[in-house]
Amino acid sequence: MLDVAIIGSGPAGVAAAINVRQRNRSLVLLGAAEVSRKLESAQEIANYPGFPEIGGAALGEAFHRHLDALGIAVERKYVDHVYPMGDFYALTSGEEMWEARSVVLATGVTAFKPIEGEIELLGRGVSYCATCDGRLYKGRPVLALAYDEDAEEEIRYLSELSDVTCIVMKKGVRVPEGVKTVEGVKPRRFAQKDRGIVLETDGESYAADGAFVLRSAMLPGVLVPGLETEGARVVVNRQFATNLPGVFAAGDLTGAPYQIAKAVGEGATAGLSAAAYVAAAENGGKK
Amino acid sequence: MLDVAIIGSGPAGVAAAINVRQRNRSLVLLGAAEVSRKLESAQEIANYPGFPEIGGAALGEAFHRHLDALGIAVERKYVDHVYPMGDFYALTSGEEMWEARSVVLATGVTAFKPIEGEIELLGRGVSYCATCDGRLYKGRPVLALAYDEDAEEEIRYLSELSDVTCIVMKKGVRVPEGVKTVEGVKPRRFAQKDRGIVLETDGESYAADGAFVLRSAMLPGVLVPGLETEGARVVVNRQFATNLPGVFAAGDLTGAPYQIAKAVGEGATAGLSAAAYVAAAENGGKK
Repeated sequence: MLDVAIIGSGPAGVAAAINVRQRNRSLVLLGAAEVSRKLESAQEIANYPGFPEIGGAALGEAFHRHLDALGIAVERKYVDHVYPMGDFYALTSGEEMWEARSVVLATGVTAFKPIEGEIELLGRGVSYCATCDGRLYKGRPVLALAYDEDAEEEIRYLSELSDVTCIVMKKGVRVPEGVKTVEGVKPRRFAQKDRGIVLETDGESYAADGAFVLRSAMLPGVLVPGLETEGARVVVNRQFATNLPGVFAAGDLTGAPYQIAKAVGEGATAGLSAAAYVAAAENGGKK
Repeated sequence: MLDVAIIGSGPAGVAAAINVRQRNRSLVLLGAAEVSRKLESAQEIANYPGFPEIGGAALGEAFHRHLDALGIAVERKYVDHVYPMGDFYALTSGEEMWEARSVVLATGVTAFKPIEGEIELLGRGVSYCATCDGRLYKGRPVLALAYDEDAEEEIRYLSELSDVTCIVMKKGVRVPEGVKTVEGVKPRRFAQKDRGIVLETDGESYAADGAFVLRSAMLPGVLVPGLETEGARVVVNRQFATNLPGVFAAGDLTGAPYQIAKAVGEGATAGLSAAAYVAAAENGGKK
């Protein structure tokens, strides 16, 4: 059992990890990328104190040298669910699982609107995770909506199992050879039909046995059932605690301004709060 | 008229200044020291992301190189009052004055209890600022309570004007030759007596025409009349706005954890909020 699981390897997740480690608590740092794509793609950052002018990639490297110095590695995993288990949480990525007393969510901004029907049909024909649910559709037709480059590997995996139609939602996403590819359509609505799924778009409709919606970002309230949100924003208090005991949130997903310094400050506080939560739980009832 | 006045040159004040400048707003950065004494005295800082292991003085230098790169200088001034003037604020340090549309308070933690009677008699025999009020007591006996090294210069100035009795509240504070010095007493209460002031202690009582209480820290609610506080903590919202329009607060004075990353994050947000406040005021009514 870990003390703290941190989801997200951007500035907030890095700061949380550093501070949890400083309190001598065990942790796992789970990130879709080594450095967040948003940080890495920033051309020049001039307002993170201590680095007068630095590229996003270079600042990401500085952050990771800091992690290295503390012996913290980023586990390249896409967490698909966080389940409350009483006095701890279970995190899953496909078939892998971690158990932790406390969780810090640092998954970045999730400024997207789900497609109509998407949330309602999750687990009933719609999935966010090919690695998790791909086998259920072995040898059957599926849709894959590719929102960004992180989807490429998932689609490659799906294409080995199933007959994939890929709806490309962002230019530049590469689709494996032999996969049917649809570009330039706008999804409107998911519906169930004959035990399968239909995706209605501004053009044709596409029917299949299942549909994979592959975005890097996941709505926090879908990732963690029961989490209180306000629009896309996770509701936190001054300790960056959410409404769920032991679950903290930091960085862009708590709201604007979307700045590295703000994310780092919140991550540091959230990490310290998580460490304090674990310590208090250990002493529970003894006080 | 300046856009933003920032009080405090520690991590929060530095981050605020950098972010106000990034929004192309005019500013003044007023600090009792070049780098905050608290930061400078930190032996080793391991949890400010990007600097795996760094001394406080070295991190302070990195922050100041950042300010230099943006052409921002710390004005070495001890602000004694912030007066609300309608749609702007006037800040004073002795006889100097600055006017700014918005203020960021980043004065650090102020974990002290005022002496009984101190707040009540401010301006009626008790003063926080020798530079401001020393002349009022020219040639007359005064008390000076020296809480830290920042008081030394004030006492030297007072001793040229008046007959000073210095109550030394911290070991190591140097008092000019010829000044009567009292050590090892604990102040209990200020009272008015015969148009003068009496300081009662756990030992003798000391009478004089006026008393100067010389601490680096000032209670934020005394610095800014009308500011909402909760104990020593300034009450802020998620934008780090206080109850006073255009006044923001960031860093240790908003509460724990007293960490550099947290102070930097809050300072950055407060700086951006102040810049946004000024921009909105400029567009006021036009929308």
